[in-house]
Amino acid sequence: PASKLPKVTTTIFTEMSQLATEHGAINLSQGFPDFEAPLALLDRVTYYLENGFNQYAPMTGVAGLRNAIAMKVAKLYGAEVDPESEITVTSGATEALFAAIGAVVCAGDEVIVFDPAYDSYEPAIELNGGKAVHLTLRQPDFSIDWLQVAQAISPKTRMIILNSPHNPTGAVLSEGDLDQLEMLVKGTNILLLSDEVYEHICFKGPHQSVLRRPALAKRAFVVSSFGKTYHTTGWKVGYCIAPNVLSVEFRKLHQYLTFCTVHPIQLALTDFINDYPEHYLELPTFYRQKRDLFCELMKTSRFSCIPSEGTYFQLMDYSEIAPEMDDLTFARWLTTEIGVAAIPVSVFYESAPEQRLVRFCFAKDDETLKQAAEKLCKI
Amino acid sequence: PASKLPKVTTTIFTEMSQLATEHGAINLSQGFPDFEAPLALLDRVTYYLENGFNQYAPMTGVAGLRNAIAMKVAKLYGAEVDPESEITVTSGATEALFAAIGAVVCAGDEVIVFDPAYDSYEPAIELNGGKAVHLTLRQPDFSIDWLQVAQAISPKTRMIILNSPHNPTGAVLSEGDLDQLEMLVKGTNILLLSDEVYEHICFKGPHQSVLRRPALAKRAFVVSSFGKTYHTTGWKVGYCIAPNVLSVEFRKLHQYLTFCTVHPIQLALTDFINDYPEHYLELPTFYRQKRDLFCELMKTSRFSCIPSEGTYFQLMDYSEIAPEMDDLTFARWLTTEIGVAAIPVSVFYESAPEQRLVRFCFAKDDETLKQAAEKLCKI
Ligand SMILES: CSCCC(=O)C(=O)O
Ligand SMILES: CSCCC(=O)C(=O)O
Repeated sequence: PASKLPKVTTTIFTEMSQLATEHGAINLSQGFPDFEAPLALLDRVTYYLENGFNQYAPMTGVAGLRNAIAMKVAKLYGAEVDPESEITVTSGATEALFAAIGAVVCAGDEVIVFDPAYDSYEPAIELNGGKAVHLTLRQPDFSIDWLQVAQAISPKTRMIILNSPHNPTGAVLSEGDLDQLEMLVKGTNILLLSDEVYEHICFKGPHQSVLRRPALAKRAFVVSSFGKTYHTTGWKVGYCIAPNVLSVEFRKLHQYLTFCTVHPIQLALTDFINDYPEHYLELPTFYRQKRDLFCELMKTSRFSCIPSEGTYFQLMDYSEIAPEMDDLTFARWLTTEIGVAAIPVSVFYESAPEQRLVRFCFAKDDETLKQAAEKLCKI
Repeated sequence: PASKLPKVTTTIFTEMSQLATEHGAINLSQGFPDFEAPLALLDRVTYYLENGFNQYAPMTGVAGLRNAIAMKVAKLYGAEVDPESEITVTSGATEALFAAIGAVVCAGDEVIVFDPAYDSYEPAIELNGGKAVHLTLRQPDFSIDWLQVAQAISPKTRMIILNSPHNPTGAVLSEGDLDQLEMLVKGTNILLLSDEVYEHICFKGPHQSVLRRPALAKRAFVVSSFGKTYHTTGWKVGYCIAPNVLSVEFRKLHQYLTFCTVHPIQLALTDFINDYPEHYLELPTFYRQKRDLFCELMKTSRFSCIPSEGTYFQLMDYSEIAPEMDDLTFARWLTTEIGVAAIPVSVFYESAPEQRLVRFCFAKDDETLKQAAEKLCKI
């Protein structure tokens, strides 16, 4: 029989990382740091590995870790979340996104997504029989057109998927956006899935989590990830916060998707968060310096920089360099001919507008960024 | 709206492990060892943790690990499997089971499962719009009634789920079973999902993997797990072997379920398997000794032992002790009143026959087994 996901191919992240490896290119495509996790965190993993914590973790996650998450969202967002019944640790944010969609999206349901959209949302919607309704973020700032959202809402709308700070554009939601969203969903049964994995990498004021608004939080699955915060994307530990009634359904999925998440790593993260509760407060400064360095170095290039307000990604417009080339072709050419891998932006659209954009990941040592910029400035 | 999985509650494993903890009972319920993973394996994880391997692994799994798996199945089962296109490393066997079902089961499809059945199969089938067709394993040996299977097959049958060595009964498939299966599926489009996570814990001759039969392997997802083999259930690393055409669809699910699996652990497993290729050959002797010890100790009890031929589980009939008590009630009573937690068997049936069975996990230090048996013999 036919494929259940006929449109799906290998993700662009795998494709570009492989191409980078094959051609010895500097890999600014797939989003991951090339520097290390805090030593104290690594040491805690070793401790638990070597002291008998290698069997199943609790299905919902280690209690201490859920408590630490609850304390953090109380402090940062003023959100009261019950760690026992409203937080679930998952095998990466990817699993959490799938479980949230799988828990509530049924055949015929519509889910509003904003293009450019992270590539895992739509397949998850489709596998659950839903239909992704694609809206396009406004140019040039990639903001949401709330009037368009209002018009797209139908009796079939089951969920709206938000992502702030936004991958791949680096745009962030404002308080005004949350106001608009509140008005829009008030009195409806529409659920929210808020992908906030870059919550701690915000350059323009505090992160506007939907958890700040009880009227939004009561209908939201909020997904985050430790990989982005502690420079450990390869550990695959994420989590989902949702009101009890939604968490009950979420956990039904989670317990049959992966059941639980690596035990010694969960315990180590718990200790590290408790021992260094301020660690993530350094991230905006840390990553702003990298963003600014990269943009500064690129000033002499023929790329033009679209300011990133969050995430560790930076969009660049290459229309001066190759106005006739689509961005997938351009990204491949950059990788194979120039020696710097990037992610094309058009692949995140159902139908991409006329634009010439690639995404660079600046979660790299300054030296790596310098070497990459040097190559890119020669074009 | 209503729950998508109205019948699902917290798994019996979570319930019984929690009850055991609350009551300080010896936990022979959820299946996990209370002894350590090989030190050399732990040391390799530490090495990779501390030497910069903490970012995303390749989506399909570390190449060396896939190669090691291919070499193993060639040696053990004479199976030729392409590690590049036919093996995918997953976040535990649980993810692999879900991805295999999600990759091919569509609305209206029927999937044959044998009761007692591991609890994750049916929710995965239902979420994908399929219908589980429950057949009951024969008493007293929990063998498959192939005539019954032949009669249950319909034009809608998309998949048959096999599990050998079988959890929770400890039964194993014979060569004759594979013969029957081959005859049955010949000329049909029926796919197989073969859950072989206890492949290395077989007490009665070599494991009859479906990979031994090209006619079966060409239509099969074969799922296994490192957790059972290396005493590391908390690491959640499993894998799926399937022909390229099925692996392509499997990977579409995997890349949006978890994307990839913990990198330093995959690398460590690769080294350990290469350095100690014979390690798993010791498992039958190791676990047979434990099974025999436990059964011997239980001889003076009023339980009667149903010989386990594989897995690290042992069924016990308690009808002499509490003929009037259903097994869930009995298992709870054992945990809270006697101080030994077990798994009731009836929960793995759609409609359980009249039997009085609980499952004990004997993947425990001899001392633990002795203490448990002592308590159980007093009843
Ligand atoms: C799961 S691999 C993709 C990593 C990522 O989120 C990105 O590069 O955008
Ligand atoms: C995923 S927890 C259950 C472990 C197990 O396979 C069992 O106890 O049968």
